[in-house]
Amino acid sequence: MKTDIQIAQESTMLHIRDVAAQLGLTEDDLDLYGKHKAKVSLDVLKAHEGDEDAKLILVTAINPTPAGEGKSTVTVGLGQALNRLGKKAVIALREPSLGPVFGVKGGAAGGGYAQVVPMEDINLHFTGDMHAITATNNLLCAAIDNHIHQGNALSIDVRRILFKRVMDMNDRALRQVNVGLGGKPNGFPREDGFMITVASEIMAILCLSTSLEDLKARMGEILIGYNLAGGPVFCKDLEIQGAMALLMKDAIKPNLVQTLENTPALIHGGPFANIAHGCNSILATRTALKLGDYVVTEAGFGADLGAEKFLDIKCRFGGLNPSAVVIVATVRALKHHGGVAKADLGTPDVEGLKKGIVNLEKQIANIRKFNLEPVVAINRFVTDSPEELAFIQAFLEERKVGVALTEVWAKGGEGGLELAEKVIATAEKAGKYQPLYAVEAPIKAKVETIVKEIYGGSSVAYSPAAEKAIKDIEAMGLDKKPICMAKTQYSLSDNPKLLGAPTGFEVKVNEVRLSNGAGFIVCLTGDIMTMPGLPKVPAANRMDIDEEGNIVGLF
Amino acid sequence: MKTDIQIAQESTMLHIRDVAAQLGLTEDDLDLYGKHKAKVSLDVLKAHEGDEDAKLILVTAINPTPAGEGKSTVTVGLGQALNRLGKKAVIALREPSLGPVFGVKGGAAGGGYAQVVPMEDINLHFTGDMHAITATNNLLCAAIDNHIHQGNALSIDVRRILFKRVMDMNDRALRQVNVGLGGKPNGFPREDGFMITVASEIMAILCLSTSLEDLKARMGEILIGYNLAGGPVFCKDLEIQGAMALLMKDAIKPNLVQTLENTPALIHGGPFANIAHGCNSILATRTALKLGDYVVTEAGFGADLGAEKFLDIKCRFGGLNPSAVVIVATVRALKHHGGVAKADLGTPDVEGLKKGIVNLEKQIANIRKFNLEPVVAINRFVTDSPEELAFIQAFLEERKVGVALTEVWAKGGEGGLELAEKVIATAEKAGKYQPLYAVEAPIKAKVETIVKEIYGGSSVAYSPAAEKAIKDIEAMGLDKKPICMAKTQYSLSDNPKLLGAPTGFEVKVNEVRLSNGAGFIVCLTGDIMTMPGLPKVPAANRMDIDEEGNIVGLF
Repeated sequence: MKTDIQIAQESTMLHIRDVAAQLGLTEDDLDLYGKHKAKVSLDVLKAHEGDEDAKLILVTAINPTPAGEGKSTVTVGLGQALNRLGKKAVIALREPSLGPVFGVKGGAAGGGYAQVVPMEDINLHFTGDMHAITATNNLLCAAIDNHIHQGNALSIDVRRILFKRVMDMNDRALRQVNVGLGGKPNGFPREDGFMITVASEIMAILCLSTSLEDLKARMGEILIGYNLAGGPVFCKDLEIQGAMALLMKDAIKPNLVQTLENTPALIHGGPFANIAHGCNSILATRTALKLGDYVVTEAGFGADLGAEKFLDIKCRFGGLNPSAVVIVATVRALKHHGGVAKADLGTPDVEGLKKGIVNLEKQIANIRKFNLEPVVAINRFVTDSPEELAFIQAFLEERKVGVALTEVWAKGGEGGLELAEKVIATAEKAGKYQPLYAVEAPIKAKVETIVKEIYGGSSVAYSPAAEKAIKDIEAMGLDKKPICMAKTQYSLSDNPKLLGAPTGFEVKVNEVRLSNGAGFIVCLTGDIMTMPGLPKVPAANRMDIDEEGNIVGLF
Repeated sequence: MKTDIQIAQESTMLHIRDVAAQLGLTEDDLDLYGKHKAKVSLDVLKAHEGDEDAKLILVTAINPTPAGEGKSTVTVGLGQALNRLGKKAVIALREPSLGPVFGVKGGAAGGGYAQVVPMEDINLHFTGDMHAITATNNLLCAAIDNHIHQGNALSIDVRRILFKRVMDMNDRALRQVNVGLGGKPNGFPREDGFMITVASEIMAILCLSTSLEDLKARMGEILIGYNLAGGPVFCKDLEIQGAMALLMKDAIKPNLVQTLENTPALIHGGPFANIAHGCNSILATRTALKLGDYVVTEAGFGADLGAEKFLDIKCRFGGLNPSAVVIVATVRALKHHGGVAKADLGTPDVEGLKKGIVNLEKQIANIRKFNLEPVVAINRFVTDSPEELAFIQAFLEERKVGVALTEVWAKGGEGGLELAEKVIATAEKAGKYQPLYAVEAPIKAKVETIVKEIYGGSSVAYSPAAEKAIKDIEAMGLDKKPICMAKTQYSLSDNPKLLGAPTGFEVKVNEVRLSNGAGFIVCLTGDIMTMPGLPKVPAANRMDIDEEGNIVGLF
């Protein structure tokens, strides 16, 4: 079997100018980054402001298994399939983070015949967006410590600084550090820690901004910590948001690349899907909506976490109105939810499937709560039996849900034609989506709505720290914001071991953080790791490049 | 008077494709980064391997004053002037570091009518080289701590790790840190520190490499620390240099931009001029030598430090043969060397000038020791009196040194025509340059040669730590390398207060470091700051950008 990189290298990329031309863009609308990447000017969006939007298709999934269900691959394949059906399709994806490439997984940008290229660039420095975010984040950090060192006019409490430094590297040694050591010339000592760049609030802000002015204003609103009197200190109090916006002047522009079948793809922004909302940028999605007939985008993790945040955070801030939601599932993953052991997932087992399909059933019901209609994509494996596939088909027909088998990994767009047809049929009948809750509701009411309506839980418990944080946020009058849940992706509940569609459980909120610049309130239900580490033998050890540019080990 | 940014904005930039076309390059030879920046493929150098080199002109200076003598401005202006005289001139400069832009100075890329553009991009992320170096450096650091955490098979001594993390930010709080805190999941605690990115050995290596394979091999040779038995541990022992080379695959390509008069400029690499050699990359210089008739490049600080390292390190590793050396001086700076107080530098004072011109005299004599002929450029100020200028003219004529007044700041290339003519006359008679010492000599002999021949000192004293480091380097057999002196730029001696041309002084070497990957031995004569801090009111606080992309405060 060919590897992803072999398949990618056999494909013929168009010059990115020609990909842009498919969308009616000229070289004036672009900043080229080599021959196969470009940034799209924000003027394109402005020029099309009054035009009708394309249809927006969200790709999400059941609660995933550790192996993943191929959501990105289906997203890319669906775009390619829509293109084959004569629709002008644009794909809108997240940018991968550099750090994890050197850890366990190597790179990723779809897979098989449903990939985005050039993958080696997309997975390394790409057009520099991650580095711009790192620099912007760390300029603010330097300004905070410099302010304290230079007299601390704002009386910033060094014990209560919330805003951390970042690095785009899997580096566990930086999770908890002491900075400012070495005496007076080096500032005041304090505890600090580094997160990986994609966990930065700057990343979430980039993805939720609708213009450079909006980006700047949001960065100014970041709550960086508290003063000694207990009052909030914002980024704007340090008068640094202008320089931060300057550092972001290119990063704010969406990046254009292509799939293996030359379908245009805008890859822009990639916030964490737990402490942030996990979607590509609003600006990229909105630009795509002006350039195509169909825009295919994805959300992070399973639908309970990723789609909910896409619909309650991104669509709300971006004024987006999705037309259909694709839920990706695999027979193997549904059997996993039915309690089938990992070793047996390749063996036909309709009983196990019956037990596990409740997870899909619940995700379908959830999507309908947003007044949206789902289409199920069964990402096909060779081990899937005809009986199992027939069962799923019948189960979904009974519930009047469109379903299609997809083989986009093996066949590219050709393997997604049935899905594309069902998506078109669904999207053409779409109405107006509605968010789940009103942002004006109290924090606890919003959390309870998500837990009961989406997760199927019965109650929410708050730690004392979470209770205090909620009171603080309410006292500052900063609580009228959507909720960003941070919980396990593996279960509808906050317990990764509760598979299928559990009910009656209590969700425990341990910590509540205000991402005031991004504009949401993060509720953490467990320990969320914001700085990964490298494994015993990192993927980096297998990587190499020779004088001719031949790369090994990246995939 | 117009500011640099106003002058820059009034100029008309060519599309970088058209600048490249002046050098016979097609779009296939380039990776475009927007409309006004491009990376030049390394294949260009390979294709021209057998061709004759252009004439290489080094621009250096007397020992500078804190205000600077305008060396970069003269470099740019001389290139523009050569162009006006019908020579195909290419300028080869260093890349600025991002961190200091937000500190005191704002950006810099020449000045007045002798600037390199687009300055806002060159001073911010440019084409991402600095970020690539940061990531490459920090991948190695993560690999070191990960190796220790995962069992420490190499028995790395956490007390003796030499290789530090970097960030391209002025952030004093990171100078000295404790990492690996928080218990077992976060690794072993140890002391560490961050340097600014340009101080990374990776930067020095980038600038001294002659190919990607050479870069990879040099990175593998970095001495990262010692094991518990006292033996050296190299980067290659961690098998990470392949992934590091992969991260540097684009950064290794020279960047093409243009001056205000559309003269091509390759801006690539920018190592520290104290703990490193302070010159742009060998690859950029060599590429420029294949594309033009004249290549104008500069070295860091004054000639005693910058030109010596250019000639003994860069030219040696790069197989370069310069044809002339321009020494930049100002009447004000020469009077400063004569002991005239700062407030009086604008007042005519031939006596002060007479006392101070000995600094220039010594730098001239030094350049001749490399079998090279200097040309003096007097960078003219309105306060310079005719008597002062006449005195300099006569002084240099007596010593048979070419001299020209330059007004490139105010007049661009037009203000450098006389200098360009003298440079051409000198370069056409040039012979073969010779380095000052043989690398095979013992470390102390090499240092003594530099101190006596170039600085005018009488002896060298070593601290006990320096003595031990020299013994260690010799014991490892890694001493057959050129010396990289790190000393004050303000004096020929190691004491910034000793102006003019002091003699009979002792130079104190406090510390000796092996930059084994870069291939030189660093001798530090004082405290060298490798991580700057921000001032009370950082330049960043004045910076802003609006929705139309108008930038303020960057210059």
